[in-house]
Amino acid sequence: MGSPGGIGRNTKAAIISMQETVTIIKIGGQILDNESKLALFLEQFVQLPGKKVLVHGGGKLATTLAEKMGVQQQMIDGRRITDSETLRIVTMVYAGHINKNLVASLNAQGCLSIGLCGADGCLITAHKRQHPTIDYGWVGDIDSVNGQLLSSLLLQELTPVIAPITADTTGQLLNTNADTIAASLATALSTTYSVQLVYTFERSGVLRDLQDADSVIPHIHFALYQQLLQEKIIADGMIPKLENAFATLAGGAKKIMIGNALQLLDLLQGNTGTTITYE
Amino acid sequence: MGSPGGIGRNTKAAIISMQETVTIIKIGGQILDNESKLALFLEQFVQLPGKKVLVHGGGKLATTLAEKMGVQQQMIDGRRITDSETLRIVTMVYAGHINKNLVASLNAQGCLSIGLCGADGCLITAHKRQHPTIDYGWVGDIDSVNGQLLSSLLLQELTPVIAPITADTTGQLLNTNADTIAASLATALSTTYSVQLVYTFERSGVLRDLQDADSVIPHIHFALYQQLLQEKIIADGMIPKLENAFATLAGGAKKIMIGNALQLLDLLQGNTGTTITYE
Repeated sequence: MGSPGGIGRNTKAAIISMQETVTIIKIGGQILDNESKLALFLEQFVQLPGKKVLVHGGGKLATTLAEKMGVQQQMIDGRRITDSETLRIVTMVYAGHINKNLVASLNAQGCLSIGLCGADGCLITAHKRQHPTIDYGWVGDIDSVNGQLLSSLLLQELTPVIAPITADTTGQLLNTNADTIAASLATALSTTYSVQLVYTFERSGVLRDLQDADSVIPHIHFALYQQLLQEKIIADGMIPKLENAFATLAGGAKKIMIGNALQLLDLLQGNTGTTITYE
Repeated sequence: MGSPGGIGRNTKAAIISMQETVTIIKIGGQILDNESKLALFLEQFVQLPGKKVLVHGGGKLATTLAEKMGVQQQMIDGRRITDSETLRIVTMVYAGHINKNLVASLNAQGCLSIGLCGADGCLITAHKRQHPTIDYGWVGDIDSVNGQLLSSLLLQELTPVIAPITADTTGQLLNTNADTIAASLATALSTTYSVQLVYTFERSGVLRDLQDADSVIPHIHFALYQQLLQEKIIADGMIPKLENAFATLAGGAKKIMIGNALQLLDLLQGNTGTTITYE
Protein backbone atom coordinates (compact mmCIF):
# COMPACT_ATOMS: atom_id res chain seq x y z
CA MET A 1 0.00 0.00 0.00
CA GLY A 2 1.96 2.96 -1.25
CA SER A 3 1.16 6.62 -1.01
CA PRO A 4 -2.08 7.15 -2.96
CA GLY A 5 -2.65 9.49 -5.86
CA GLY A 6 1.01 9.93 -6.67
CA ILE A 7 1.46 12.75 -4.15
CA GLY A 8 4.64 12.47 -2.11
CA ARG A 9 4.07 11.66 1.52
CA ASN A 10 5.61 14.93 2.76
CA THR A 11 3.54 17.06 0.37
CA LYS A 12 0.42 15.12 1.39
CA ALA A 13 1.19 15.63 5.07
CA ALA A 14 1.62 19.36 4.51
CA ILE A 15 -1.74 19.61 2.69
CA ILE A 16 -3.51 17.59 5.36
CA SER A 17 -2.05 19.64 8.20
CA MET A 18 -3.80 22.71 6.77
CA GLN A 19 -7.17 20.98 6.73
CA GLU A 20 -9.76 21.03 9.46
CA THR A 21 -10.10 17.79 11.41
CA VAL A 22 -13.23 15.64 11.34
CA THR A 23 -13.53 12.79 13.83
CA ILE A 24 -15.68 9.81 12.82
CA ILE A 25 -16.63 7.58 15.71
CA LYS A 26 -18.17 4.13 15.39
CA ILE A 27 -20.00 2.68 18.37
CA GLY A 28 -21.03 -0.93 18.43
CA GLY A 29 -24.02 -2.83 19.69
CA GLN A 30 -22.80 -3.67 23.18
CA ILE A 31 -22.71 -0.05 24.27
CA LEU A 32 -26.12 0.65 22.73
CA ASP A 33 -27.62 -2.16 24.81
CA ASN A 34 -26.47 -0.67 28.10
CA GLU A 35 -28.22 2.56 29.07
CA SER A 36 -25.71 3.79 31.66
CA LYS A 37 -22.67 2.95 29.50
CA LEU A 38 -24.31 4.66 26.53
CA ALA A 39 -24.93 7.78 28.64
CA LEU A 40 -21.27 7.81 29.69
CA PHE A 41 -20.17 7.46 26.06
CA LEU A 42 -22.50 10.22 24.82
CA GLU A 43 -21.36 12.58 27.58
CA GLN A 44 -17.80 12.25 26.25
CA PHE A 45 -18.88 12.41 22.63
CA VAL A 46 -20.60 15.75 23.28
CA GLN A 47 -17.41 17.16 24.84
CA LEU A 48 -15.32 16.23 21.82
CA PRO A 49 -14.20 19.44 20.12
CA GLY A 50 -14.48 20.06 16.37
CA LYS A 51 -16.53 18.50 13.62
CA LYS A 52 -17.65 14.94 14.26
CA VAL A 53 -19.77 12.09 12.89
CA LEU A 54 -21.29 9.23 14.87
CA VAL A 55 -21.84 5.88 13.13
CA HIS A 56 -23.79 3.33 15.12
CA GLY A 57 -24.42 -0.37 14.83
CA GLY A 58 -27.36 -2.38 16.00
CA GLY A 59 -27.45 -4.08 19.36
CA LYS A 60 -29.65 -6.81 20.71
CA LEU A 61 -32.93 -4.95 20.26
CA ALA A 62 -33.32 -6.13 16.65
CA THR A 63 -32.93 -9.76 17.75
CA THR A 64 -35.32 -9.27 20.68
CA LEU A 65 -37.89 -7.66 18.40
CA ALA A 66 -37.56 -10.45 15.82
CA GLU A 67 -38.18 -13.00 18.57
CA LYS A 68 -41.25 -11.10 19.82
CA MET A 69 -42.60 -10.96 16.27
CA GLY A 70 -41.86 -14.63 15.71
CA VAL A 71 -39.40 -13.90 12.87
CA GLN A 72 -36.84 -16.71 12.61
CA GLN A 73 -33.24 -15.56 12.23
CA GLN A 74 -31.69 -17.42 9.32
CA MET A 75 -28.01 -18.27 9.65
CA ILE A 76 -25.80 -19.67 6.87
CA ASP A 77 -22.19 -20.57 7.76
CA GLY A 78 -22.50 -18.56 10.96
CA ARG A 79 -23.68 -15.43 9.15
CA ARG A 80 -27.07 -13.87 9.62
CA ILE A 81 -29.17 -13.67 6.46
CA THR A 82 -31.23 -10.52 6.02
CA ASP A 83 -34.60 -11.68 4.66
CA SER A 84 -37.42 -9.16 4.00
CA GLU A 85 -38.84 -9.36 7.53
CA THR A 86 -35.40 -8.97 9.09
CA LEU A 87 -34.67 -5.98 6.84
CA ARG A 88 -37.89 -4.36 8.01
CA ILE A 89 -36.90 -4.98 11.63
CA VAL A 90 -33.34 -3.63 11.34
CA THR A 91 -34.62 -0.58 9.42
CA MET A 92 -37.10 0.12 12.21
CA VAL A 93 -34.63 -0.50 15.03
CA TYR A 94 -31.45 1.04 13.56
CA ALA A 95 -32.82 3.96 11.50
CA GLY A 96 -35.86 4.51 13.76
CA HIS A 97 -35.53 3.69 17.45
CA ILE A 98 -31.76 3.81 17.99
CA ASN A 99 -30.97 6.64 15.57
CA LYS A 100 -33.70 9.02 16.78
CA ASN A 101 -33.04 8.37 20.46
CA LEU A 102 -29.32 9.05 19.96
CA VAL A 103 -30.11 12.29 18.12
CA ALA A 104 -32.63 13.52 20.70
CA SER A 105 -30.19 12.72 23.50
CA LEU A 106 -27.28 14.55 21.81
CA ASN A 107 -29.45 17.58 21.02
CA ALA A 108 -30.59 17.75 24.65
CA GLN A 109 -26.90 17.95 25.62
CA GLY A 110 -26.25 20.80 23.20
CA CYS A 111 -24.65 18.78 20.39
CA LEU A 112 -26.83 19.66 17.39
CA SER A 113 -27.27 16.34 15.60
CA ILE A 114 -29.09 15.05 12.54
CA GLY A 115 -29.90 11.38 12.13
CA LEU A 116 -29.58 9.81 8.72
CA CYS A 117 -29.26 6.45 7.10
CA GLY A 118 -27.46 5.78 3.84
CA ALA A 119 -30.67 6.26 1.85
CA ASP A 120 -31.07 9.88 2.97
CA GLY A 121 -29.88 12.28 0.31
CA CYS A 122 -28.24 9.28 -1.40
CA LEU A 123 -25.62 9.51 1.36
CA ILE A 124 -24.45 5.94 0.78
CA THR A 125 -25.39 4.05 -2.36
CA ALA A 126 -24.90 0.29 -2.24
CA HIS A 127 -25.81 -2.86 -4.12
CA LYS A 128 -27.09 -6.22 -2.90
CA ARG A 129 -24.11 -8.41 -2.00
CA GLN A 130 -23.15 -10.82 -4.74
CA HIS A 131 -21.60 -14.10 -3.65
CA PRO A 132 -21.01 -17.25 -5.76
CA THR A 133 -22.65 -19.62 -3.26
CA ILE A 134 -24.37 -17.69 -0.46
CA ASP A 135 -27.40 -15.41 -0.81
CA TYR A 136 -26.98 -13.04 2.11
CA GLY A 137 -30.40 -11.52 1.46
CA TRP A 138 -30.81 -7.75 1.69
CA VAL A 139 -27.22 -7.01 2.61
CA GLY A 140 -25.53 -4.05 0.95
CA ASP A 141 -21.96 -3.53 -0.25
CA ILE A 142 -21.09 0.13 -0.66
CA ASP A 143 -20.56 1.72 -4.09
CA SER A 144 -20.38 5.44 -3.33
CA VAL A 145 -20.72 8.12 -0.67
CA ASN A 146 -22.27 11.58 -1.16
CA GLY A 147 -19.40 13.42 0.52
CA GLN A 148 -20.83 16.77 -0.59
CA LEU A 149 -23.96 16.27 1.53
CA LEU A 150 -21.91 15.18 4.53
CA SER A 151 -19.58 18.19 4.16
CA SER A 152 -22.50 20.60 3.86
CA LEU A 153 -24.06 19.24 7.07
CA LEU A 154 -20.71 19.59 8.87
CA LEU A 155 -20.37 23.17 7.57
CA GLN A 156 -23.76 23.90 9.15
CA GLU A 157 -22.30 22.74 12.49
CA LEU A 158 -24.53 19.67 12.46
CA THR A 159 -23.27 16.33 13.78
CA PRO A 160 -24.47 13.54 11.48
CA VAL A 161 -25.57 10.37 13.29
CA ILE A 162 -25.57 7.50 10.80
CA ALA A 163 -27.59 4.28 10.96
CA PRO A 164 -26.23 1.23 9.07
CA ILE A 165 -28.97 1.03 6.45
CA THR A 166 -28.24 1.96 2.83
CA ALA A 167 -30.19 1.84 -0.44
CA ASP A 168 -29.49 0.78 -4.00
CA THR A 169 -30.41 2.82 -7.06
CA THR A 170 -33.78 1.06 -7.41
CA GLY A 171 -34.96 2.16 -3.95
CA GLN A 172 -34.25 -1.15 -2.20
CA LEU A 173 -33.04 -0.67 1.39
CA LEU A 174 -30.05 -2.78 2.41
CA ASN A 175 -28.58 -3.83 5.76
CA THR A 176 -24.95 -2.68 5.76
CA ASN A 177 -21.97 -3.22 8.06
CA ALA A 178 -21.44 -0.19 10.30
CA ASP A 179 -17.61 -0.59 10.39
CA THR A 180 -17.54 -0.43 6.60
CA ILE A 181 -19.85 2.58 6.59
CA ALA A 182 -17.52 4.41 9.00
CA ALA A 183 -14.52 3.58 6.78
CA SER A 184 -16.33 4.71 3.60
CA LEU A 185 -17.35 8.03 5.18
CA ALA A 186 -13.74 8.50 6.34
CA THR A 187 -12.46 8.00 2.80
CA ALA A 188 -15.10 10.33 1.30
CA LEU A 189 -14.38 13.13 3.79
CA SER A 190 -10.60 12.80 3.39
CA THR A 191 -10.71 14.81 0.16
CA THR A 192 -11.81 17.88 2.16
CA TYR A 193 -10.85 17.25 5.76
CA SER A 194 -8.13 15.72 7.87
CA VAL A 195 -10.03 12.64 9.03
CA GLN A 196 -9.48 10.54 12.11
CA LEU A 197 -11.57 7.39 12.44
CA VAL A 198 -12.26 5.88 15.86
CA TYR A 199 -13.56 2.35 16.31
CA THR A 200 -14.82 1.95 19.85
CA PHE A 201 -15.69 -1.35 21.46
CA GLU A 202 -15.57 -3.04 24.87
CA ARG A 203 -11.81 -3.70 24.81
CA SER A 204 -9.06 -1.17 25.51
CA GLY A 205 -7.43 -1.55 22.08
CA VAL A 206 -5.51 -4.11 20.00
CA LEU A 207 -4.12 -6.55 22.56
CA ARG A 208 -0.72 -8.33 22.40
CA ASP A 209 -2.27 -11.07 24.55
CA LEU A 210 -6.05 -11.59 24.42
CA GLN A 211 -5.96 -12.93 27.99
CA ASP A 212 -4.32 -9.75 29.28
CA ALA A 213 -6.48 -6.61 29.09
CA ASP A 214 -3.42 -4.49 29.92
CA SER A 215 -1.42 -5.66 26.90
CA VAL A 216 -2.69 -2.92 24.57
CA ILE A 217 -0.34 -2.13 21.67
CA PRO A 218 -0.33 1.70 21.73
CA HIS A 219 0.78 2.29 18.12
CA ILE A 220 0.70 0.11 15.04
CA HIS A 221 2.29 1.29 11.82
CA PHE A 222 2.30 -0.76 8.63
CA ALA A 223 5.73 -2.35 9.14
CA LEU A 224 4.83 -3.34 12.73
CA TYR A 225 1.50 -4.76 11.51
CA GLN A 226 3.29 -7.05 9.09
CA GLN A 227 5.68 -8.13 11.84
CA LEU A 228 2.79 -8.80 14.27
CA LEU A 229 1.05 -10.84 11.56
CA GLN A 230 4.17 -12.99 11.08
CA GLU A 231 4.47 -13.47 14.83
CA LYS A 232 0.77 -14.45 14.89
CA ILE A 233 0.15 -11.86 17.63
CA ILE A 234 -2.54 -10.41 15.39
CA ALA A 235 -4.88 -13.17 14.26
CA ASP A 236 -8.48 -14.15 13.58
CA GLY A 237 -11.05 -11.34 13.85
CA MET A 238 -8.48 -8.61 14.27
CA ILE A 239 -6.95 -9.21 10.81
CA PRO A 240 -9.93 -7.94 8.75
CA LYS A 241 -10.30 -5.01 11.16
CA LEU A 242 -6.66 -3.98 10.64
CA GLU A 243 -6.71 -4.71 6.89
CA ASN A 244 -9.74 -2.43 6.73
CA ALA A 245 -7.92 0.18 8.83
CA PHE A 246 -4.90 0.26 6.50
CA ALA A 247 -7.17 0.39 3.45
CA THR A 248 -8.91 3.41 4.98
CA LEU A 249 -5.52 5.06 5.61
CA ALA A 250 -4.69 4.37 1.95
CA GLY A 251 -7.99 6.07 1.10
CA GLY A 252 -6.76 9.26 2.75
CA ALA A 253 -7.71 9.07 6.44
CA LYS A 254 -4.99 10.49 8.67
CA LYS A 255 -5.17 8.09 11.58
CA ILE A 256 -7.34 5.38 13.03
CA MET A 257 -7.87 4.65 16.69
CA ILE A 258 -9.27 1.53 18.30
CA GLY A 259 -10.25 1.48 21.95
CA ASN A 260 -12.77 1.50 24.76
CA ALA A 261 -15.97 3.49 24.12
CA LEU A 262 -16.08 4.53 27.78
CA GLN A 263 -12.62 6.14 27.54
CA LEU A 264 -13.36 8.14 24.41
CA LEU A 265 -11.65 11.39 25.43
CA ASP A 266 -8.54 9.58 26.71
CA LEU A 267 -8.53 7.51 23.54
CA LEU A 268 -8.53 10.61 21.35
CA GLN A 269 -5.75 12.18 23.38
CA GLY A 270 -3.65 9.06 22.82
CA ASN A 271 -3.62 8.15 26.53
CA THR A 272 -5.21 4.79 25.91
CA GLY A 273 -6.12 2.47 23.02
CA THR A 274 -4.32 1.68 19.80
CA THR A 275 -3.46 4.28 17.19
CA ILE A 276 -2.95 3.07 13.63
CA THR A 277 -0.98 5.07 11.10
CA TYR A 278 1.11 4.23 8.07
CA GLU A 279 4.43 5.24 9.49
CA MET B 1 -58.46 36.52 12.02
CA GLY B 2 -57.12 39.75 10.59
CA SER B 3 -54.04 40.33 8.49
CA PRO B 4 -51.07 39.27 10.67
CA GLY B 5 -48.08 41.35 11.64
CA GLY B 6 -49.71 44.67 10.82
CA ILE B 7 -48.68 44.52 7.13
CA GLY B 8 -51.45 45.55 4.78
CA ARG B 9 -52.81 42.73 2.64
CA ASN B 10 -51.76 44.31 -0.65
CA THR B 11 -48.19 44.93 0.55
CA LYS B 12 -48.03 41.39 1.88
CA ALA B 13 -49.31 39.97 -1.42
CA ALA B 14 -46.68 41.94 -3.31
CA ILE B 15 -43.87 40.63 -1.09
CA ILE B 16 -45.12 37.06 -1.34
CA SER B 17 -45.44 37.20 -5.11
CA MET B 18 -41.70 37.83 -5.33
CA GLN B 19 -40.88 34.79 -3.25
CA GLU B 20 -40.13 31.30 -4.48
CA THR B 21 -42.91 28.78 -3.90
CA VAL B 22 -42.56 25.80 -1.57
CA THR B 23 -45.24 23.12 -1.64
CA ILE B 24 -45.77 21.13 1.56
CA ILE B 25 -47.75 17.94 1.05
CA LYS B 26 -49.21 15.83 3.81
CA ILE B 27 -50.11 12.21 3.05
CA GLY B 28 -52.13 10.19 5.49
CA GLY B 29 -52.11 6.61 6.64
CA GLN B 30 -54.58 5.15 4.16
CA ILE B 31 -52.35 5.83 1.17
CA LEU B 32 -49.27 4.48 2.99
CA ASP B 33 -51.07 1.20 3.60
CA ASN B 34 -51.76 0.61 -0.09
CA GLU B 35 -48.67 -0.15 -2.16
CA SER B 36 -50.11 0.59 -5.59
CA LYS B 37 -51.87 3.80 -4.47
CA LEU B 38 -48.67 4.94 -2.76
CA ALA B 39 -46.71 4.30 -5.97
CA LEU B 40 -49.25 6.37 -7.93
CA PHE B 41 -49.01 9.21 -5.40
CA LEU B 42 -45.18 9.19 -5.38
CA GLU B 43 -45.05 9.20 -9.18
CA GLN B 44 -47.02 12.46 -9.14
CA PHE B 45 -45.08 13.88 -6.20
CA VAL B 46 -41.81 13.39 -8.13
CA GLN B 47 -43.23 15.29 -11.13
CA LEU B 48 -44.22 18.27 -9.01
CA PRO B 49 -42.01 21.22 -10.02
CA GLY B 50 -40.17 23.43 -7.52
CA LYS B 51 -39.20 23.03 -3.90
CA LYS B 52 -41.32 20.60 -1.91
CA VAL B 53 -41.65 18.90 1.45
CA LEU B 54 -43.45 15.63 2.18
CA VAL B 55 -45.00 15.08 5.62
CA HIS B 56 -46.30 11.60 6.27
CA GLY B 57 -48.52 10.03 8.90
CA GLY B 58 -48.57 6.51 10.17
CA GLY B 59 -50.86 3.90 8.72
CA LYS B 60 -51.93 0.55 10.03
CA LEU B 61 -48.44 -0.93 10.31
CA ALA B 62 -47.89 0.51 13.81
CA THR B 63 -51.12 -1.11 15.03
CA THR B 64 -50.25 -4.42 13.33
CA LEU B 65 -46.79 -4.38 14.89
CA ALA B 66 -48.20 -3.58 18.35
CA GLU B 67 -50.56 -6.55 18.02
CA LYS B 68 -47.72 -8.85 16.95
CA MET B 69 -45.65 -7.69 19.93
CA GLY B 70 -48.60 -8.09 22.29
CA VAL B 71 -48.65 -4.37 23.17
CA GLN B 72 -52.17 -3.32 24.19
CA GLN B 73 -53.40 -0.07 22.64
CA GLN B 74 -54.77 2.12 25.41
CA MET B 75 -57.72 4.31 24.49
CA ILE B 76 -59.20 7.07 26.67
CA ASP B 77 -62.31 8.87 25.41
CA GLY B 78 -61.69 7.42 21.95
CA ARG B 79 -58.14 8.74 21.81
CA ARG B 80 -55.08 6.55 21.60
CA ILE B 81 -52.64 6.95 24.48
CA THR B 82 -48.94 6.80 23.61
CA ASP B 83 -47.31 4.75 26.37
CA SER B 84 -43.57 3.97 26.27
CA GLU B 85 -43.97 0.78 24.25
CA THR B 86 -46.28 2.49 21.75
CA LEU B 87 -43.82 5.39 21.41
CA ARG B 88 -41.06 2.91 20.61
CA ILE B 89 -43.27 1.27 18.00
CA VAL B 90 -44.35 4.51 16.28
CA THR B 91 -40.74 5.76 16.30
CA MET B 92 -39.63 2.54 14.61
CA VAL B 93 -42.48 2.45 12.10
CA TYR B 94 -42.81 6.16 11.24
CA ALA B 95 -39.19 7.40 11.47
CA GLY B 96 -37.68 4.04 10.46
CA HIS B 97 -39.64 1.81 8.12
CA ILE B 98 -42.03 4.29 6.44
CA ASN B 99 -39.67 7.27 6.29
CA LYS B 100 -36.68 5.39 4.88
CA ASN B 101 -38.72 3.45 2.31
CA LEU B 102 -40.32 6.69 1.09
CA VAL B 103 -36.90 8.33 0.80
CA ALA B 104 -35.31 5.40 -1.03
CA SER B 105 -38.26 5.24 -3.41
CA LEU B 106 -38.16 8.99 -4.18
CA ASN B 107 -34.39 8.92 -4.69
CA ALA B 108 -34.74 6.01 -7.11
CA GLN B 109 -37.14 8.18 -9.14
CA GLY B 110 -34.69 11.07 -9.23
CA CYS B 111 -36.23 13.20 -6.49
CA LEU B 112 -33.30 13.70 -4.09
CA SER B 113 -34.87 13.28 -0.66
CA ILE B 114 -33.73 13.33 2.94
CA GLY B 115 -35.78 11.71 5.69
CA LEU B 116 -36.02 13.44 9.04
CA CYS B 117 -38.15 13.45 12.13
CA GLY B 118 -38.68 16.47 14.36
CA ALA B 119 -35.75 15.47 16.57
CA ASP B 120 -33.23 15.78 13.72
CA GLY B 121 -31.34 19.05 13.87
CA CYS B 122 -33.98 20.21 16.40
CA LEU B 123 -36.28 20.56 13.38
CA ILE B 124 -39.41 20.52 15.55
CA THR B 125 -39.21 21.05 19.30
CA ALA B 126 -42.28 20.05 21.28
CA HIS B 127 -43.41 19.40 24.83
CA LYS B 128 -45.47 16.58 26.33
CA ARG B 129 -49.16 17.45 26.00
CA GLN B 130 -50.62 18.94 29.16
CA HIS B 131 -54.29 18.29 29.79
CA PRO B 132 -56.27 18.88 32.99
CA THR B 133 -57.81 15.39 33.11
CA ILE B 134 -56.25 13.14 30.44
CA ASP B 135 -52.64 11.94 30.33
CA TYR B 136 -52.08 11.35 26.63
CA GLY B 137 -48.71 9.75 27.31
CA TRP B 138 -45.78 10.62 25.05
CA VAL B 139 -47.72 12.94 22.76
CA GLY B 140 -46.07 16.19 21.70
CA ASP B 141 -47.47 19.67 21.13
CA ILE B 142 -45.22 21.82 18.98
CA ASP B 143 -43.26 24.78 20.42
CA SER B 144 -40.92 25.74 17.58
CA VAL B 145 -39.62 24.85 14.13
CA ASN B 146 -36.01 25.20 12.95
CA GLY B 147 -36.92 26.94 9.70
CA GLN B 148 -33.28 27.73 8.98
CA LEU B 149 -32.42 24.01 8.72
CA LEU B 150 -35.43 23.36 6.50
CA SER B 151 -34.53 26.31 4.24
CA SER B 152 -30.92 25.19 3.97
CA LEU B 153 -31.98 21.69 2.89
CA LEU B 154 -34.33 23.17 0.29
CA LEU B 155 -31.53 25.43 -0.97
CA GLN B 156 -29.45 22.28 -1.50
CA GLU B 157 -32.25 20.97 -3.74
CA LEU B 158 -33.12 18.29 -1.19
CA THR B 159 -36.73 17.27 -0.59
CA PRO B 160 -37.30 16.80 3.15
CA VAL B 161 -39.52 13.82 4.03
CA ILE B 162 -40.79 14.32 7.57
CA ALA B 163 -41.96 11.64 10.02
CA PRO B 164 -44.40 12.69 12.78
CA ILE B 165 -42.05 12.18 15.73
CA THR B 166 -40.65 15.19 17.60
CA ALA B 167 -38.51 15.65 20.74
CA ASP B 168 -38.58 17.91 23.76
CA THR B 169 -35.55 19.76 25.12
CA THR B 170 -34.68 16.89 27.49
CA GLY B 171 -34.27 14.37 24.66
CA GLN B 172 -37.66 12.70 25.09
CA LEU B 173 -39.19 11.63 21.78
CA LEU B 174 -42.88 12.48 21.31
CA ASN B 175 -45.61 11.19 18.98
CA THR B 176 -46.96 14.24 17.14
CA ASN B 177 -49.90 14.84 14.81
CA ALA B 178 -48.73 14.96 11.18
CA ASP B 179 -51.38 17.54 10.13
CA THR B 180 -50.09 19.90 12.82
CA ILE B 181 -46.49 19.27 11.77
CA ALA B 182 -47.35 20.17 8.17
CA ALA B 183 -49.07 23.38 9.34
CA SER B 184 -46.12 24.33 11.60
CA LEU B 185 -43.62 23.79 8.79
CA ALA B 186 -45.83 25.92 6.50
CA THR B 187 -45.82 28.77 9.00
CA ALA B 188 -42.06 28.54 9.58
CA LEU B 189 -41.26 28.55 5.85
CA SER B 190 -43.66 31.43 5.15
CA THR B 191 -41.09 33.96 6.38
CA THR B 192 -38.83 33.02 3.44
CA TYR B 193 -41.03 31.39 0.83
CA SER B 194 -44.48 31.59 -0.69
CA VAL B 195 -45.93 28.45 0.87
CA GLN B 196 -48.77 26.28 -0.33
CA LEU B 197 -49.91 23.50 1.95
CA VAL B 198 -51.69 20.46 0.55
CA TYR B 199 -53.61 18.01 2.72
CA THR B 200 -54.26 14.86 0.75
CA PHE B 201 -56.66 12.14 1.77
CA GLU B 202 -59.05 9.64 0.22
CA ARG B 203 -61.79 12.18 -0.55
CA SER B 204 -61.85 14.65 -3.44
CA GLY B 205 -62.02 17.73 -1.20
CA VAL B 206 -64.37 19.47 1.22
CA LEU B 207 -67.83 18.14 0.34
CA ARG B 208 -71.10 20.09 0.42
CA ASP B 209 -72.88 16.77 0.94
CA LEU B 210 -70.91 13.91 2.55
CA GLN B 211 -73.11 11.40 0.68
CA ASP B 212 -72.19 12.94 -2.68
CA ALA B 213 -68.53 12.53 -3.70
CA ASP B 214 -69.09 15.00 -6.56
CA SER B 215 -70.19 17.84 -4.27
CA VAL B 216 -66.68 19.24 -3.77
CA ILE B 217 -66.60 22.94 -2.83
CA PRO B 218 -63.84 24.25 -5.14
CA HIS B 219 -62.90 27.38 -3.17
CA ILE B 220 -63.49 28.39 0.42
CA HIS B 221 -62.55 31.87 1.58
CA PHE B 222 -63.02 33.06 5.14
CA ALA B 223 -66.41 34.70 4.62
CA LEU B 224 -67.74 31.59 2.84
CA TYR B 225 -66.37 29.40 5.63
CA GLN B 226 -68.36 31.35 8.21
CA GLN B 227 -71.48 31.10 6.05
CA LEU B 228 -71.00 27.31 5.58
CA LEU B 229 -70.58 26.95 9.33
CA GLN B 230 -73.86 28.77 9.97
CA GLU B 231 -75.61 26.61 7.36
CA LYS B 232 -74.08 23.52 9.10
CA ILE B 233 -72.71 22.37 5.73
CA ILE B 234 -69.31 22.22 7.40
CA ALA B 235 -69.56 20.24 10.61
CA ASP B 236 -67.87 17.67 12.86
CA GLY B 237 -64.37 16.60 11.85
CA MET B 238 -64.06 19.17 9.07
CA ILE B 239 -64.31 22.12 11.51
CA PRO B 240 -60.92 21.61 13.24
CA LYS B 241 -59.32 20.93 9.84
CA LEU B 242 -60.60 24.23 8.45
CA GLU B 243 -59.90 26.17 11.68
CA ASN B 244 -56.36 24.83 11.41
CA ALA B 245 -56.21 25.83 7.73
CA PHE B 246 -57.25 29.43 8.43
CA ALA B 247 -54.79 29.62 11.35
CA THR B 248 -52.04 28.48 8.98
CA LEU B 249 -53.07 31.14 6.46
CA ALA B 250 -52.92 33.68 9.31
CA GLY B 251 -49.41 32.36 9.99
CA GLY B 252 -48.36 33.39 6.48
CA ALA B 253 -49.11 30.45 4.18
CA LYS B 254 -50.42 31.58 0.81
CA LYS B 255 -53.00 28.92 0.14
CA ILE B 256 -54.12 25.54 1.37
CA MET B 257 -55.51 22.75 -0.74
CA ILE B 258 -57.45 19.68 0.36
CA GLY B 259 -58.04 16.80 -1.98
CA ASN B 260 -57.41 13.31 -3.27
CA ALA B 261 -53.83 12.04 -2.95
CA LEU B 262 -54.18 10.16 -6.24
CA GLN B 263 -55.02 13.37 -8.14
CA LEU B 264 -52.11 15.38 -6.76
CA LEU B 265 -51.11 17.14 -9.99
CA ASP B 266 -54.72 18.02 -10.86
CA LEU B 267 -55.22 19.19 -7.30
CA LEU B 268 -52.25 21.55 -7.50
CA GLN B 269 -53.46 22.90 -10.83
CA GLY B 270 -56.81 23.70 -9.23
CA ASN B 271 -58.68 21.23 -11.45
CA THR B 272 -59.97 19.27 -8.49
CA GLY B 273 -60.18 19.52 -4.69
CA THR B 274 -60.83 22.45 -2.42
CA THR B 275 -58.61 25.53 -2.31
CA ILE B 276 -58.67 27.58 0.87
CA THR B 277 -57.60 31.22 0.93
CA TYR B 278 -58.50 34.24 3.00
CA GLU B 279 -60.24 36.20 0.29
